[in-house]
Amino acid sequence: MKILVLNAGSSSHKLCLYAWGDAFLPKSAPAPVWQAQIDWYSDRVTVEVSPKAASPGAPLKENKDFTSRRQILSEVLSTLWQGTNPVLHRPDEIDAVGHRVVHGGQTYQTSTLVTPDVKTEISRLRSLAPNHNPANLEGIELMEELLGDTPQIAVFDTAFHRQMPDVAAIYPGPYEWVNQGIRRYGFHGISHQYCSQRAAQLLKRDDLRLIICHLGNGGSLTAVHHGQSIDTTMGFTPLDGLMMGTRSGAIDPGILIYLMRQGYSADQLDQVLNKESGLKGISGISHDLRHIKEAITAGDVRAQLALDIYLHRLKSCVGSMLMGLGGLDVIVFTAGIGEHAASIRTETCKAMAFLGLKLDLVKNEQNPVDQDVAMTDSAVRVLVIHTQEDWAIAQDCWSCIQQMRDSA
Amino acid sequence: MKILVLNAGSSSHKLCLYAWGDAFLPKSAPAPVWQAQIDWYSDRVTVEVSPKAASPGAPLKENKDFTSRRQILSEVLSTLWQGTNPVLHRPDEIDAVGHRVVHGGQTYQTSTLVTPDVKTEISRLRSLAPNHNPANLEGIELMEELLGDTPQIAVFDTAFHRQMPDVAAIYPGPYEWVNQGIRRYGFHGISHQYCSQRAAQLLKRDDLRLIICHLGNGGSLTAVHHGQSIDTTMGFTPLDGLMMGTRSGAIDPGILIYLMRQGYSADQLDQVLNKESGLKGISGISHDLRHIKEAITAGDVRAQLALDIYLHRLKSCVGSMLMGLGGLDVIVFTAGIGEHAASIRTETCKAMAFLGLKLDLVKNEQNPVDQDVAMTDSAVRVLVIHTQEDWAIAQDCWSCIQQMRDSA
Repeated sequence: MKILVLNAGSSSHKLCLYAWGDAFLPKSAPAPVWQAQIDWYSDRVTVEVSPKAASPGAPLKENKDFTSRRQILSEVLSTLWQGTNPVLHRPDEIDAVGHRVVHGGQTYQTSTLVTPDVKTEISRLRSLAPNHNPANLEGIELMEELLGDTPQIAVFDTAFHRQMPDVAAIYPGPYEWVNQGIRRYGFHGISHQYCSQRAAQLLKRDDLRLIICHLGNGGSLTAVHHGQSIDTTMGFTPLDGLMMGTRSGAIDPGILIYLMRQGYSADQLDQVLNKESGLKGISGISHDLRHIKEAITAGDVRAQLALDIYLHRLKSCVGSMLMGLGGLDVIVFTAGIGEHAASIRTETCKAMAFLGLKLDLVKNEQNPVDQDVAMTDSAVRVLVIHTQEDWAIAQDCWSCIQQMRDSA
Repeated sequence: MKILVLNAGSSSHKLCLYAWGDAFLPKSAPAPVWQAQIDWYSDRVTVEVSPKAASPGAPLKENKDFTSRRQILSEVLSTLWQGTNPVLHRPDEIDAVGHRVVHGGQTYQTSTLVTPDVKTEISRLRSLAPNHNPANLEGIELMEELLGDTPQIAVFDTAFHRQMPDVAAIYPGPYEWVNQGIRRYGFHGISHQYCSQRAAQLLKRDDLRLIICHLGNGGSLTAVHHGQSIDTTMGFTPLDGLMMGTRSGAIDPGILIYLMRQGYSADQLDQVLNKESGLKGISGISHDLRHIKEAITAGDVRAQLALDIYLHRLKSCVGSMLMGLGGLDVIVFTAGIGEHAASIRTETCKAMAFLGLKLDLVKNEQNPVDQDVAMTDSAVRVLVIHTQEDWAIAQDCWSCIQQMRDSA
């Protein structure tokens, strides 16, 4: 089985290829046999391929149009079967291509074979994810051009939350919003679902009450019970919930009304709340927690404030998820900050001591992978899980292919 | 000691007079010796006075200007010392007038003798509370005209939250907001402070970790530790936090940006989120929980949804406050819904069973006043407290007068 995964964003395309024997799905993520990342900057394109291949052609300076993007992607893909380190004999060995698609709206609760109708629907949902769905769709169309009839599977970042109860999904605005599609969709679903399943696997129980903290440059929490998402902090858009790298997260809606009366337009508010807030906005230094910590060491007061507010918001949202679960078996930390910032885990867990949670400070400092860092006698398990969104997408592709074969 | 309390809103003036022997402040709220309520409707004015007085003159049809308001207020006040049931001999027996003022901004952390500077500041803060501060200021000016030199005390609804740590008060937007005064002020402070002090008095401890649930047509929670507000759900405006009668509470800021792009103006968003959301928006029936419950009994699905979301949001915010406190000694329920809706208390407490909280269902159903309705072996006390904002204002007036006398 050979599955290519494409994660297409507005400024980058990340690709990887998984290969394994057909009969079984590996229990844990194998390393991809090939990876590539293309970054589309305004003035240049950078390409990284691993294992190193012959140079995939001099990147074009002008990268804005579909044709030149197609050409670069084509050259990058061709290193799979050409050049110094080919991992395939021929392109048609690829069984399926899996795509991360950010917004599946209310339509998709599972991964889906891409058909013309699915493409239309992804396009229709662009009003809900203007920065993401068009890029995802372009990724699909590029791969169609390059790989012809190879099955393509859309894996939605909203799908895991699609079964969330109405009580968590419906915002307390006017009821008309329900029919207008203004509801909590939630994001990072591929990661939350992967972590939920991995936690069940690690602890050998599938009836767990979990809070999954996906903390990267973006961040969201999900409350999971019996493997189902029952609440999450991101909402109608990825702006809701936690304080993030450059995003404010949830704030008083009255602030937006106040700023509108001072003359702010929708685009300006979008820019301020999505790009100039969060860790970057408060610190004035960086969206990156590592830089914030360096600045704190150097005595920067606003960097300390940014970290303190980040933690306050994180704890506050953990409490919010906790009440929906009515208690807690496991807290999971994942993604860049979740996996690598031991101090964020320590501070969060300290605030949860009243639940009988006891963190093993030594284990926690070692930034372990897929391990329990709680003390043996802790009433709540604390897992650090390396999220594997690409592998989760590949797994979904495998399931789709099995279903197609079964129904053929 | 005779203290007149005025709670001036945009559509009503509520007045009451407390009278007690000078030497000591009563330990619990005495009944006011006189009360009045004037409602300014668009087409008429209604006046209620207790104890019943001779008719305070036929209310004027035209009530929009200061002069006619002053005349009605003057007639109502005069029943204090004139007519069939006077409670005073002369107007100058009134020692002080206490005013509820909604927004004290970052200036006032305690109650303050009204001076020309204080009036200027209350007026300056009108941009933060456009519906309230102008009405409060008019109330002060009316009373100045009617009672001359009698000391007037401004008691701010934000003051109790003024010491809240920055980590809770500063929104994770751009840092410039701090200097622009865009921060969490919190409201219902007079009620939260009263309940905090009353809880300490009832349980004979002042080191308590409390969550105070002020649930009326508006609603907010405050986390209190050692008598200090350390976090609260209302924010820059009274729109943040809980779902309320007609207000949405906190929603994804991305929803406002989305609606702006559909053409919504600031006034329209203000109207939708403050007047057409919450219990009323979801149910389509009423902002009043009692009507919602009647509709549920009659099988109305949207009324049930409104109640379910209300409870979900309430529990979620309780969890948020809980994490800041790192555990809980007492949860207090107060105001219309908090004091009278036993089922709201039951459902909230049910979700807190994991804390060892055990509600006494029988006691709880009796809607007791200023009593503990938890089981003896509950790990968390549950208090139902009748909030006494007017009495809290009178107490603050008494303190101010003592200080003035001491420093004279």
